[in-house]
Amino acid sequence: MENILGREIPESIIGYKEVKPYKGAFASLGEIQKKSVKIKAMTPGHSKIITSIKEVLRKCDIHDGMTISFHHHLRNGDYVLNMVLEQIANMGIKDITVAVSSIFPIHAPLVKYIRNGVVTGIYTNYMSGPVAEAISKGELKNPIIMHTHGGRARAIESGDLFIDIAFIASPTCDTYGNINGVEGKSACGTLGYAIPDAMYAQKVVAITDHLVSYPASPIEISQEYVDYIVQVESIGDPKGIVSGTTKITKDPVGLKIAKMTAQVIEISGLLKEGFSFQTGAGGTSLAVAYYVKELMKKKGIKGSFAAGGITGYIVEMFEEGLFDCLFDVQCFDLKAIQSYRDHPKHQLMSASMYGNPHNKGAVVNNLDVMILGATEIDTDFNVNVTTGSNGMIMGGSGGHSDTAAGSKLSIVVTQLIKGRLPIVVDKVTTVTTPGETVDVLVTERGIAINPKRQDLIEKLKNTNLPVMTIEQLKEIAESMTGVPKKITLDDQIVAVVEYRDGTIIDVVRKVKG
Amino acid sequence: MENILGREIPESIIGYKEVKPYKGAFASLGEIQKKSVKIKAMTPGHSKIITSIKEVLRKCDIHDGMTISFHHHLRNGDYVLNMVLEQIANMGIKDITVAVSSIFPIHAPLVKYIRNGVVTGIYTNYMSGPVAEAISKGELKNPIIMHTHGGRARAIESGDLFIDIAFIASPTCDTYGNINGVEGKSACGTLGYAIPDAMYAQKVVAITDHLVSYPASPIEISQEYVDYIVQVESIGDPKGIVSGTTKITKDPVGLKIAKMTAQVIEISGLLKEGFSFQTGAGGTSLAVAYYVKELMKKKGIKGSFAAGGITGYIVEMFEEGLFDCLFDVQCFDLKAIQSYRDHPKHQLMSASMYGNPHNKGAVVNNLDVMILGATEIDTDFNVNVTTGSNGMIMGGSGGHSDTAAGSKLSIVVTQLIKGRLPIVVDKVTTVTTPGETVDVLVTERGIAINPKRQDLIEKLKNTNLPVMTIEQLKEIAESMTGVPKKITLDDQIVAVVEYRDGTIIDVVRKVKG
Repeated sequence: MENILGREIPESIIGYKEVKPYKGAFASLGEIQKKSVKIKAMTPGHSKIITSIKEVLRKCDIHDGMTISFHHHLRNGDYVLNMVLEQIANMGIKDITVAVSSIFPIHAPLVKYIRNGVVTGIYTNYMSGPVAEAISKGELKNPIIMHTHGGRARAIESGDLFIDIAFIASPTCDTYGNINGVEGKSACGTLGYAIPDAMYAQKVVAITDHLVSYPASPIEISQEYVDYIVQVESIGDPKGIVSGTTKITKDPVGLKIAKMTAQVIEISGLLKEGFSFQTGAGGTSLAVAYYVKELMKKKGIKGSFAAGGITGYIVEMFEEGLFDCLFDVQCFDLKAIQSYRDHPKHQLMSASMYGNPHNKGAVVNNLDVMILGATEIDTDFNVNVTTGSNGMIMGGSGGHSDTAAGSKLSIVVTQLIKGRLPIVVDKVTTVTTPGETVDVLVTERGIAINPKRQDLIEKLKNTNLPVMTIEQLKEIAESMTGVPKKITLDDQIVAVVEYRDGTIIDVVRKVKG
Repeated sequence: MENILGREIPESIIGYKEVKPYKGAFASLGEIQKKSVKIKAMTPGHSKIITSIKEVLRKCDIHDGMTISFHHHLRNGDYVLNMVLEQIANMGIKDITVAVSSIFPIHAPLVKYIRNGVVTGIYTNYMSGPVAEAISKGELKNPIIMHTHGGRARAIESGDLFIDIAFIASPTCDTYGNINGVEGKSACGTLGYAIPDAMYAQKVVAITDHLVSYPASPIEISQEYVDYIVQVESIGDPKGIVSGTTKITKDPVGLKIAKMTAQVIEISGLLKEGFSFQTGAGGTSLAVAYYVKELMKKKGIKGSFAAGGITGYIVEMFEEGLFDCLFDVQCFDLKAIQSYRDHPKHQLMSASMYGNPHNKGAVVNNLDVMILGATEIDTDFNVNVTTGSNGMIMGGSGGHSDTAAGSKLSIVVTQLIKGRLPIVVDKVTTVTTPGETVDVLVTERGIAINPKRQDLIEKLKNTNLPVMTIEQLKEIAESMTGVPKKITLDDQIVAVVEYRDGTIIDVVRKVKG
């Protein structure tokens, strides 16, 4: 069968629960029910500290077939996933499903566990590196399930993603399980993605390299949710945890795109008192922030909030008084960590508060403008950030679909051609984010506006901006690169891409060869 | 039948769910299950602001038989409960159950609604004033259910107390439902008791007199949990919300008791680095804090935390560096509110984090010393803070039973005789807190130690403190007052006193006449 985007979805998928095809960005809302959590109550005088990961796995009754979860705030410096899996493998446990909010090159040992059957299932929101490659080649037994950041929170809270044991990489943890990410040698800032895991998993284990006396302060994850604590030598490599500083692009093409994007924002009418804004950590995205900043200063506009994974650049805008507050699910650099630690108005948001479509209103719902990237965008404005044009998984939604759906104006910024391939195509290799939630595409050659935003088309009509149809952009690109060859893929489904509401927006098939 | 404390509990109680007799302070723990929450997901662009209480009641589909909840941080200045009930009464709704964490004299209009059948059930943790009197006289249709502060959180989270609509009195609320208690003309400090209501009620309504633009900061209750917002002229009378400052007693008898109590704490061996402490806001309790402070300073001890409803006096100890951190479920005075607003280490705790026995470890579990009051204490160390010796309800557990159960050393401080009646009796009128969780009784005439604490008896043996048996204390009291006459009560049960785990520790019967 096909879903409403015309993507081919089988009636059933081996290793996947009931298939529910995507029906539209806001079609599956309404009344929803959260999972009932079972826990073991803790009596006074009982210690939560366990001497080793092996011992804590025994305490949690680890066995074949379980689902264990991790968060990705330590990014490409994370040691925790690898050390837990190593122990599980040593214990001879098989058939584990790993639910980790993102997978990085440092998680390469997972490939070994995929091959030897220790790991047979994976949930993630984003993946790059050797694990993504192995999965693209069909090495994992079951198809992985790819969520959005908000969709993962939804899946955990609803019970769709049932977690037996959540492992919380804890830069600071006290002796009764209060956790924060701002102190300790592995400080990473906010722990927003780990909060649903802590609240809804059957068992919760804090793994820390900075065990402090009770009580920790601040507290991001409360003792109420933590069963056990294990102290280890190191939970991560600081070099991989945070980049030094995130920087604006110096590439003139990127700057041109950014400048035009800022103009679109200005003309949209959203750039006024109370303006709210989110952008990624990429060079062009940050350049948009630069031009928006200049406009805000020129016009004397004070924004309400900026959100997202927060970068030092956004912190600077906040410190200059351009935003009243920051909502932060993940700190991207040291400056962001420091700001989050020191400024009360640089506030934590959980993954659920950030983007879960099944709560009483996520932060994304209040975003005026969201700046998005794209690997491909098709003439229906569907965006792919999951697979490369060769079909290989090299990303995933993260907050892409959540912010696109929530914001009043979502703008994709990209060069028209990358690696000699046009970015605008007839049909994206994989749909990550549905076109109905994407408003504008800005490239160095021209700007395309989603036809459903006639209001925007009207506003941009009499400006000097190079507005054209997305088909025209595709033609310009193809005139330079030629029409790219269609890739052919194997039938085997290696990934199910769930939209934030849990319906299937697309599947990823095995790459050939 | 009788429960293990020998209290007469009927096999069934009209207007009350299944009777489960109390079986011991830690007998009903183990595996527990939290309630599954149903909510309505909120789409972008949807406004939560409703023009009036009447309109919001309609939106929540108010009807006969519903349970609505309130929190008591506005104490004897709270307007919210009265204004909501007035509107419900005007709409002709009947048979409402009111779940309010505490009831004060300002809630006198409830009596009218009890009499005319608008309100037929009540859950509360504490009550004083006209409503307590009316209930003691048997005027409410169903027996009220009295919880502890932690027990109320447990009941809400488990579904034992099912809330259809929670009304959150909100000193500050933004346009998307983020709430705090530190700003606005009705600022009351932390909103710890309201958090379980917000997280587990079917519908959540913020009532505010300080509606601010999005986003509020700080956020104590997140937009994720709030369905609707109603702006009103005033949610409370500042004079009733906070007392100016809470003060130490000047009464020499109270000071004598306090001084001896501090000595008991010192001799117990708990007064060392990392010491943790909680005391109430009463004059004698605060005097204990004074003497403990002097001891800590003399010995150069730094404590880990103080907890509870926080008073200015405890804030002073915190500011002097005697405690590293404060855990605050409710600010008792202006100084506490300011401290909570300004000091990151003066931290919020929810009612569940504070005292819920059915989570993975409440803050009370880490308390070294708790100072408690008593209206009566019997020779089994059972304490009554629920009823007066005339049988009239004039209080309730609040955090009494939670902290007694959690702390390593719980000390009841009281004068031996009050209002010409002995405080030590054979059998308390009502058991609020079981004797197995009460370690020491300190009175001006002598100190009694619970026989189950042989370790303490040993430590106090060779000191100059007047240690004696509780029976001896009773005899001393009775030699001065005579043996008090037993009161006789009607058969009708007007209140079911639930222990923190939801079992029945006692019932309160109707007063005669």
